[in-house]
Amino acid sequence: MPRLFERVTIAGVGLIGGSLALAARAAGLVGEIIGYGRTEANLQVAQRRGIVDRYSRDIVEAARDTDLLLLAVPVSAMAAVVRACTPVLRAGAVISDVGSVKARVVAEVEAVLPPELSFVGAHPIAGTEHSGAAAAFAELFQGNRCIITPGRRTDPSAVAKVRALWEGVGMRVDEMDPARHDLILAWVSHLPHAVAFSAVSAVLDADAALAQFAGSSFRDLTRVAASSVEMWSDIFLANAAQVDAAIVKFIAVLEALRRAITSGDEAELKRQLERARAARQQWSAATR
Amino acid sequence: MPRLFERVTIAGVGLIGGSLALAARAAGLVGEIIGYGRTEANLQVAQRRGIVDRYSRDIVEAARDTDLLLLAVPVSAMAAVVRACTPVLRAGAVISDVGSVKARVVAEVEAVLPPELSFVGAHPIAGTEHSGAAAAFAELFQGNRCIITPGRRTDPSAVAKVRALWEGVGMRVDEMDPARHDLILAWVSHLPHAVAFSAVSAVLDADAALAQFAGSSFRDLTRVAASSVEMWSDIFLANAAQVDAAIVKFIAVLEALRRAITSGDEAELKRQLERARAARQQWSAATR
Repeated sequence: MPRLFERVTIAGVGLIGGSLALAARAAGLVGEIIGYGRTEANLQVAQRRGIVDRYSRDIVEAARDTDLLLLAVPVSAMAAVVRACTPVLRAGAVISDVGSVKARVVAEVEAVLPPELSFVGAHPIAGTEHSGAAAAFAELFQGNRCIITPGRRTDPSAVAKVRALWEGVGMRVDEMDPARHDLILAWVSHLPHAVAFSAVSAVLDADAALAQFAGSSFRDLTRVAASSVEMWSDIFLANAAQVDAAIVKFIAVLEALRRAITSGDEAELKRQLERARAARQQWSAATR
Repeated sequence: MPRLFERVTIAGVGLIGGSLALAARAAGLVGEIIGYGRTEANLQVAQRRGIVDRYSRDIVEAARDTDLLLLAVPVSAMAAVVRACTPVLRAGAVISDVGSVKARVVAEVEAVLPPELSFVGAHPIAGTEHSGAAAAFAELFQGNRCIITPGRRTDPSAVAKVRALWEGVGMRVDEMDPARHDLILAWVSHLPHAVAFSAVSAVLDADAALAQFAGSSFRDLTRVAASSVEMWSDIFLANAAQVDAAIVKFIAVLEALRRAITSGDEAELKRQLERARAARQQWSAATR
């Protein structure tokens, strides 16, 4: 495949940004890769691992004459990065991101975007509970899905290049509007993280010594509670309305299960469990 | 190690009972192993895999002259199995179980137990979301914990033999009273299962098509929702009071997280997330 971008600037060389750099370079999709971040030690790790060719802690320096500015910073910081960089990007440059929230990011970035530049919102749905350039690996995206949320005035050729980038590292790409993305992610990612953080907090409130008896179900339930607080605080706040709705509905369902248990209604309890079990087994079979 | 039991009857040759048979045989802890179950096909799988030497669908036949009657049936069925078998067990036989709930099981079994027999409640905290003899594997217990809950009149030598059995297949064994066990398990196992079943149900209510976009956090959160409905209905009902208390406290914590999100209280949100993250990372480090 021919190169999509001669020069790429990755703003935020963490798990996602770093893994994309490794995967895109391995696939021959990009030329020079420049890293930007706030933490010198992390950028040094990125350079040592061959994730970036060079780096700067000055975003304007890192973004100068670049063809792709990839935003992999916390979602609340994205518009400010765009505002700082637009004067120095190469003509025809593409701006994209990897944020887990799209409606607010697209609105904030488009508000500061000069008309000659395109922003292509994107969200590769992949990750682990680990953070930083040290956690990056090229295979992270293989077989997972990426959602692209073009704005109404986004240049179709920019969308095509961002799609080719994520397909080139092994992802299946869907396009949809930002609100639909945020609804989906509230359920399949933001709610699971809220539940994981809360389950750990609840056990701490009850008796921290309980955790030593945890089996695999508690470990799996709470795995992502080890995730970055800064990133997740940002995501919850940027998608507050959809996260709120998902949590409220989830609690209502859990309350219904609780009522079936406390009332000893075995038939109703089994009906609820069987419905969930059948769907979960079907999903396992479909994604195996 | 010398044999602990010359003849063992496993009532319920599923994931746990079958895995114990494989592990105990491999460690030379037991002689003949007889399986009991209701489903001929599962018992045939168990015999073909060398899990049992022979089997019967008649529990009295399977338990005749046995030295260890191991109850690995749903917890609500345990007392009935004991009642049926006590006349035919070998003198000095031990009865034990693997149930995820202890207070009700110990009370129900002791109520039907002749004074010359000992019941040693036990719970190996290990499992997967798969069921049946086909899912059994000898390594299931390695490095995990087992809780034993001796009754007030349980023969100490019976307790010692049951402890040696679980230690012999690689488990770390703790002894405690049944109520403490049930409190712990409500938090580290029963709540995670209730949450998993409910998360799947809530997504089905919202829009079943969402699940195709699930990343690893949703997959991990809901993995155990594929577990046996009969077993989990039984566990929830047998430990209803403790499960109820855990769910209520968990919901209160999740509501507090939700309030921090919807009110935009970033400092409070980060405080809650950071507390959970620190504890979860510490647990990971401790159990690695």
